[in-house]
Amino acid sequence: MTISAISGHPAKSGSASICRGCWDQMHMPIPIRGPLSLPFRAFGITRSKMNPDICTICERSFQYVKKQRYITAGATILFADIRGYTGLSERIEAIELSRIVSLFHDRAAQAIWENDGIVNKQMGDGLMAIFNFPITRKDHAAAAIRAALEIQRSCTEALAELDTGYTLGIGVGIHTGDVQIGEFSSFRSDFTAIGGVVNQAARLESQAAPGEILVSLETTLQAPELMGGTEARSLSLKGIEQPVEARVLLVN
Amino acid sequence: MTISAISGHPAKSGSASICRGCWDQMHMPIPIRGPLSLPFRAFGITRSKMNPDICTICERSFQYVKKQRYITAGATILFADIRGYTGLSERIEAIELSRIVSLFHDRAAQAIWENDGIVNKQMGDGLMAIFNFPITRKDHAAAAIRAALEIQRSCTEALAELDTGYTLGIGVGIHTGDVQIGEFSSFRSDFTAIGGVVNQAARLESQAAPGEILVSLETTLQAPELMGGTEARSLSLKGIEQPVEARVLLVN
Repeated sequence: MTISAISGHPAKSGSASICRGCWDQMHMPIPIRGPLSLPFRAFGITRSKMNPDICTICERSFQYVKKQRYITAGATILFADIRGYTGLSERIEAIELSRIVSLFHDRAAQAIWENDGIVNKQMGDGLMAIFNFPITRKDHAAAAIRAALEIQRSCTEALAELDTGYTLGIGVGIHTGDVQIGEFSSFRSDFTAIGGVVNQAARLESQAAPGEILVSLETTLQAPELMGGTEARSLSLKGIEQPVEARVLLVN
Repeated sequence: MTISAISGHPAKSGSASICRGCWDQMHMPIPIRGPLSLPFRAFGITRSKMNPDICTICERSFQYVKKQRYITAGATILFADIRGYTGLSERIEAIELSRIVSLFHDRAAQAIWENDGIVNKQMGDGLMAIFNFPITRKDHAAAAIRAALEIQRSCTEALAELDTGYTLGIGVGIHTGDVQIGEFSSFRSDFTAIGGVVNQAARLESQAAPGEILVSLETTLQAPELMGGTEARSLSLKGIEQPVEARVLLVN
């Protein structure tokens, strides 16, 4: 049971009064907004940077939440970055570069949160999002695709307005399957996801042209309603022996 | 002036009694060990996960520390990952994969900390380290090369002992120059580095064979004493128009 199931309608991103991750994973109500959240804040339990509807318990105390070092779970992984960013970073002023990266990260996060995903990692211009943990959603494949469409829409518009002298575009890769979620270094306590599914999502993204969303066959099969009229593409991905079948979503 | 200059000898990683980042950046003594650190801990100021010799003020309050959203500073950037990890992640058991990633991240962090660098980002099997911020070191190029040599030494040994049935190796890329350091998204408060130098370090790493450390010409020139007898290699890197000259360090 999720909070939206309790309240009867999906919560708007950033408006949950109790942590949706702790609720979905442990059925434990941890206040993150309003007066009830004050004593928790005094102990450093606040809203997570990964998603404002979850709390820092979900973010940093994976072993407390799941009672093990890692779990294997079905999830959808989304990677996105600014295409041509390396070339761009060689030619553009620092202040302009920082504005572009900030704009992309902020818009992408908003789109991911609105679909109950978390921004698990940011590295340079790129980011990785997880759907279905810690906020559970049966339709995590569709949620990730919807987030990707919204990322493309909002960023294309905003990047064009920046007037950098370059045509900038976002590339997105999405894959669905079993991943390992947990803490994978003894000195960092925030959880992440690893495994073949995660890597394949990253590889798909690296093949996406500006404006493209490359969706794996596995993701497509879970959200056929969103994939009508899309182009099929067979890709040869680095480190993966077999060609990978994907579908190409374009926003226009 | 750094803490090691005050005490007359370099501090051992993890043993600093005051935050070396806050000292080097603001000349402000923030206790991170011993009884004096207790009141700070009560306010959530503890040792950082990026490096145990710096504190969460450096990690999360960049704008407080530097009085601006980002700075441009000379630094050395190191990227490292497990070569062949994507292929490996398709064929290996989850528990084995998590052990390999944990082992690599822990050993690499130790080597980076011993040379006053910080583990700024971890994403999947990969990581990015910054040398010369917030702990300042004039010899940051040499510090990064020493960390890389130690990563190769300690990981090669440990990975061989794991007996996975696969020959695993680490690839490292290092580049030195002006980077932009600051907060580049409005919802995350930990700082990072961006810019052309960061991307070139990442591209160098992507070209490193298992066991190799690819060092850019700029880094080499700042640490010639460590580069004797190394092979020169001209590389064509994705997104960078001119061929990049690098030197190859091999550990044996």
